[in-house]
Amino acid sequence: MKYCFGVDVGGTTVKLGLFTVEGELLDKWEIKTYTENEGERILPDVTKAIKEKIAEKKLAADEICGIGVGVPAPVDKNGAIERAANVGWKAKEIKKELEELTGYPCVIGNDANVAALGEMWKGAGEGEKDLIMVTLGTGVGGGIIIDGHPVVGAHGAGGEIGHITVRNDETETCGCGRKGCLEQYASATGLVRLTKRYFEKNAKNSILNKKEITAKEVFDAAKAGDEAALEITEEFGAYLGQALVNLAATVDPAVFVIGGGVSKAGDILLDIVRKYFYDHAFYGNQKTKILLATLGNDAGIYGAAKQVL
Amino acid sequence: MKYCFGVDVGGTTVKLGLFTVEGELLDKWEIKTYTENEGERILPDVTKAIKEKIAEKKLAADEICGIGVGVPAPVDKNGAIERAANVGWKAKEIKKELEELTGYPCVIGNDANVAALGEMWKGAGEGEKDLIMVTLGTGVGGGIIIDGHPVVGAHGAGGEIGHITVRNDETETCGCGRKGCLEQYASATGLVRLTKRYFEKNAKNSILNKKEITAKEVFDAAKAGDEAALEITEEFGAYLGQALVNLAATVDPAVFVIGGGVSKAGDILLDIVRKYFYDHAFYGNQKTKILLATLGNDAGIYGAAKQVL
Repeated sequence: MKYCFGVDVGGTTVKLGLFTVEGELLDKWEIKTYTENEGERILPDVTKAIKEKIAEKKLAADEICGIGVGVPAPVDKNGAIERAANVGWKAKEIKKELEELTGYPCVIGNDANVAALGEMWKGAGEGEKDLIMVTLGTGVGGGIIIDGHPVVGAHGAGGEIGHITVRNDETETCGCGRKGCLEQYASATGLVRLTKRYFEKNAKNSILNKKEITAKEVFDAAKAGDEAALEITEEFGAYLGQALVNLAATVDPAVFVIGGGVSKAGDILLDIVRKYFYDHAFYGNQKTKILLATLGNDAGIYGAAKQVL
Repeated sequence: MKYCFGVDVGGTTVKLGLFTVEGELLDKWEIKTYTENEGERILPDVTKAIKEKIAEKKLAADEICGIGVGVPAPVDKNGAIERAANVGWKAKEIKKELEELTGYPCVIGNDANVAALGEMWKGAGEGEKDLIMVTLGTGVGGGIIIDGHPVVGAHGAGGEIGHITVRNDETETCGCGRKGCLEQYASATGLVRLTKRYFEKNAKNSILNKKEITAKEVFDAAKAGDEAALEITEEFGAYLGQALVNLAATVDPAVFVIGGGVSKAGDILLDIVRKYFYDHAFYGNQKTKILLATLGNDAGIYGAAKQVL
């Protein structure tokens, strides 16, 4: 057994990777995700892409230990899902179908958990077995790994870090229907919301005080020393930091890995969150590390592949 | 293999239980904990107590599969501790020492994790594999079980539920040195504190408006319909409920088990916490159960014994 495949199924593209069992990425490519007709083409398309790659690289069947897949849905212990709205799937036995199509053993996982597994295997958390990945994108996602295994949860809702309550007096409603979720403050849209709120209360002179802004602009302004931006990002860091403090007291990871589009802000984000965390964390968690993700969009294919090893 | 022992080491007494491997408690008893000289007598005393029981019951050595122990300290993967202040121990290789003394395989765990394991095996969580036990006593303790195994954490601080932050504007300091920990509101002392605070702000006529009160009196007054007591216990329930909401979004247990002295308040406590929880929990956690612990002080010996099976 020398090789394995990692497949990351998203709403726009399916990312694929060919790996050695040691975790070296030999080749990666993408195919379009056809979501039409309840996503019926997706698994056949993945099968075709993998078979073509096997032929191209002249790999023997007995050299391939399996195919790992990450999907945007909770996954049960049989590798089945109830639905994955982003890709059109309704109830689907993904593991069973893909094994029949490909002839190789398949392991299926939730995409957020799989990305966390990827960062544990070959990313910022390499060498660790207890890790929490927090993905700051349009929303806030999470993956919790304990002793090398993702925490799926009794109802598939493990690692729903974006829906930890961090504020009790919030008046606006989160996408989940509740109020005060981490996602309302620490996502890209959350940071923009914090910025708009800031200027409703403060008539400060700032490059951010305009109609349309992006999360990137807020961090760029903070890096440039804009006073309002520094206060806004500090507030952002306090909400995220509070969530990390509580996660640490709960599952005590060795490392937090921060990924997603917002994390491209880099060291300034890390500095703000670390300051809050170490000032507020329980003494038993003071050795917990907080790092930026290093695999970017490849975390999914790495983690997917890791599942079959 | 027919039998195993469960040992729960506390600061005042060591509780012992003889179990069948199916989990029937055949006999239980206690010995005094001698904490003098760094607790040097404790393990020899436990050994003597077990050997006497084996002789009394005429058990054969090959019928006994081992001895499980719960201790009031974080325990590393070798069954060793750095210190356990309550019982006088400094750094101690408990597993190694007790195996040498008794000649039986020993498994050592943290007492809070072990109690959670007991409630999972034969208590309120029987049949479940994902469970969080919250112990409301003088402080607030916790044990998290995922897929049948306690979450120890990378630094032994897993399940420190009492030190989840539930309030950002607290002015008084928790025993851990931080502010706003769950323990400051949901422990017996926390409930008394909430009560005193309530009467500082409200000049209500209540049987609780007096100098010395206990947590039991607060719940008794609430059961009797005392208006102030109902408001105070509602506040208590909101803090505890918020912590459970966030724990559910993080590890998504099948069941929360509430134990400890404060939980003797019974159904009224359960009603208050459940109301808050189901009103506020993420939709993926709406099937999570909240139950009262059923094993009482025996949870420790049950869970200790379960470790060796």
